Parts: sequence; C-alpha cells; structure tokens
Amino acid sequence: MVYTSLKNDKIKEIIKLKDKKYRDKYNLFLIEGEHLIEEAIKMNLIKEIIYEEGYENSKFIPTMIVSKSIYKELTFLETPASIIGVCKKSDITIQADKILAIDKVQDPGNMGTIIRSALGFNFKKILISKDSADVYSPKVIRATQGAIFALEIKYVDLKAELTKYKKEYKLLSTDVEQGKSPSKFKNEKVIVIMGNEGSGVSEEIKDICDDYIYIKTNEQLESLNVGVAASIIMYELNKED
Amino acid sequence: MVYTSLKNDKIKEIIKLKDKKYRDKYNLFLIEGEHLIEEAIKMNLIKEIIYEEGYENSKFIPTMIVSKSIYKELTFLETPASIIGVCKKSDITIQADKILAIDKVQDPGNMGTIIRSALGFNFKKILISKDSADVYSPKVIRATQGAIFALEIKYVDLKAELTKYKKEYKLLSTDVEQGKSPSKFKNEKVIVIMGNEGSGVSEEIKDICDDYIYIKTNEQLESLNVGVAASIIMYELNKED
Repeated sequence: MVYTSLKNDKIKEIIKLKDKKYRDKYNLFLIEGEHLIEEAIKMNLIKEIIYEEGYENSKFIPTMIVSKSIYKELTFLETPASIIGVCKKSDITIQADKILAIDKVQDPGNMGTIIRSALGFNFKKILISKDSADVYSPKVIRATQGAIFALEIKYVDLKAELTKYKKEYKLLSTDVEQGKSPSKFKNEKVIVIMGNEGSGVSEEIKDICDDYIYIKTNEQLESLNVGVAASIIMYELNKED
Repeated sequence: MVYTSLKNDKIKEIIKLKDKKYRDKYNLFLIEGEHLIEEAIKMNLIKEIIYEEGYENSKFIPTMIVSKSIYKELTFLETPASIIGVCKKSDITIQADKILAIDKVQDPGNMGTIIRSALGFNFKKILISKDSADVYSPKVIRATQGAIFALEIKYVDLKAELTKYKKEYKLLSTDVEQGKSPSKFKNEKVIVIMGNEGSGVSEEIKDICDDYIYIKTNEQLESLNVGVAASIIMYELNKED
C-alpha cells in the first residue's frame, strides 16, 4: 500500500513533526537521508522508515511508502533524499565529569556544530536553556551529522538547573576580561557554559559561575564564532597530556 | 538628491554586485550594516555609503541616498539595516609564516567561520581554490564579521600555487590515518590545507603534501565540522607555549 492522501491520519501526524510544538508533545522528530537513518537504527531510536514511491535501497526495510506528492510535503532538503525516518528522542542518562550548557544560542548551524563537537570531545551531557534553538529541528539535525543520538540532551530552566549542579561541578563561562586558559580546568568536574551569538552568556548565569575562561585571539578580531569557541574549549578540556 | 529609478546607471552597476561575475570583474562587493561599514572605513576600502531614504546616523556621511524601493533591491538581510556600502576588495600583501589554503569548501557559513578564525589565530594570508565559495558573497561576509578586511585573500589554481610555495613552506593537510598532532609543527613555516565538507582535501593536493595532521576525537564521531577543524588547527599552531 502506498500512502497518497494528505488527509490520512498517520500522514497528518507525521507532517505535524515539522513543527516544534508537536516534536515536544510526542517526543518524536524527523530525520532524512540514509546516513542519519542508519545512526538512528543503531541506537534503536527509529519508529518509522518512510520511502518515497519508487525509491530502492537494500539496506533498510521501509515501514511506509508514500507518493511523490506526499514526500514533497515531508522533505526539508533542497535535494530530497527519498528516505525519511520518524525518530524517538533519546532518553539516555549519562554520568559525565564534563558537561556543556547552552544559554540562548539561536542559530541552528551553530547549535548543530556545537552538538557535533560535544560528542567529538566527550561532553556527552548537554543542558540547554529553553529559549535556545531546537536541537530536533531539521537544520540542526543535519548540522549534527548524527551526533545527537549518542548524547544526553535536556532542555531546562538553565539557572535553576545549574544551581543544582553547583555543589559538585565548577561552573565556567567565557569572559574576555577575567578569563583564564581552559586547560587550567582539565582535571576538574566542570560545566562549560556557552552563550548567545550577540550578547554572550547572560548576566544572571555569569553571576553564579565559579570561574571564567577565555581563548586568546588576535586583537583585531572582536570575537570567535560561538561554535568555534565552544569546540576549542571542549577540545582543550578533553585533551590528553 | 534621492535615487529612485532602477534604470539609473549608477544603481544598475551597484545591483550587479549581487552577482559573483561582476564582483570578480570590478573587484567590488557589497556590505550591509554599521559594523561592517565602520570596519571598511578603517581599512580605507569604502567606495560608496548608501542610505535608505529616511535613515539617520551621525557616524557616517552617505555618498548616496536611495528610495525605499531601491533599497529593497539592494539588501540581502531579512532585517535590512538601511545602510549599505560598496567596498573595494583589499589588495594587501602579507608576509606570513603560517598560511591557510582552502580546497573546495562550499558552505558560505563554514567559509565565513574559517576566515574569522584565521584572523583570530594569525593566519593572515589565505589561498582559496577557484571552485570554493565566494568570500565576497553576502552570506560569507556576514559570517566573517569584518575579518575579511585585514587579510590577504587570493583565489588561485591551488595545486599550481601550492607547488610554488613548497620549497619554503611545509604543506600540511588533514588525514585520519597518518595524521600527527598539529602542535608538532608550531615552529615551522607551514601551509595548512582544509578540504571540502564531504570529501576532504582532494587527492591531487594530498599527493603534494609534506605531512599530515589530525585532531583526535571520540570514535563515535565520524568527523568534525570543517570550520571547527580548521579553527582548532590554527589555534594550536598559533598558541604560545
């Protein structure tokens, strides 16, 4: 059977997942392309595998086949991949000595880059303020390149959440004036807090921090891209001596 | 006098700069917003300062004022800034011990991030393959945050150009299998070559390299974002002991 009607209830439910509200409600999101589907299968997070009519692939068995016109409603790529997955949000809990916190990062590309680097440098637990970009939006998912499946990601009231961790972890945010080199904190339990593209970490979060870090750059440059800054800090803290 | 007609020759010339072909032909490009205009003025690269009719600003003196409908044709921002500059491409020559080369990087955001970090970590001379994204396109300019004005940027036949430098500089590209830590090359004259988002540095360029570098990451991650990888390598090579 090929799904051909936008009025079909199952199709309607799936299309809703393009909207953050429904991703939050159902704890589901969409991924597109073979690579991401494969990663989701490995982590046992796949719920549906949807093929565009006519698509052939020996690797995966589709649970649904949809007409070309339905596929057009589902895809979010300029060059559609003909295969989309409905995916459960992971609910793994990770014990970590190094945690990343994200305060109001807005750009989906930056968010994706940060998540991808977090896995690369073993920051496997990530706390995100509720007013940051949605990690489960198609643009972020694409930029993470599948890293999302192996991480614990929690949207939280950031100040309240950080306060709970403060006894056990040193809270670090970036600061141009009083910042120290990130390598100084290598052997400690830390939460690294990265802030908004324009305004940095918010004052109320800075106020509860225990210390500050800074990456030294040529003075002609005002600031690094937040994805780059986050990546370098995590790289330094993860580096073996 | 307020320019109101799209048929005006001067307006026609300026609109052409939205197209790479004409940016290449005239060695001019467009920038939008106060911050970039200010940077361009500092570097003595500004040719025209264009205000949208009704815009007021005490910092800059406009050389042209255009009607709102003309401004709409010129802007490339979702939230137009009401001030656009026509800018000369810089032709500074920089003597550098550390050079960056870019081989087929396609994404404007990645390109902008790399340029911004290059200034931050003192890679002030950049060689770019002709089939890479155009540094002077609005999206890249925005992502560089003005870093572009202080750098020497040359679009070249990359293999031929690198061959010329090979006597004096060590050519380094990334390689997962035989790559060494970037810090090993800190005290040498090097050209760091970064490659395409999907396929990495092309084989013909890898073949002429003298050595290879690699950033160690968690094995669950296939690769870092190219902007992040470039930034970490430049950071390491620029770091003081």
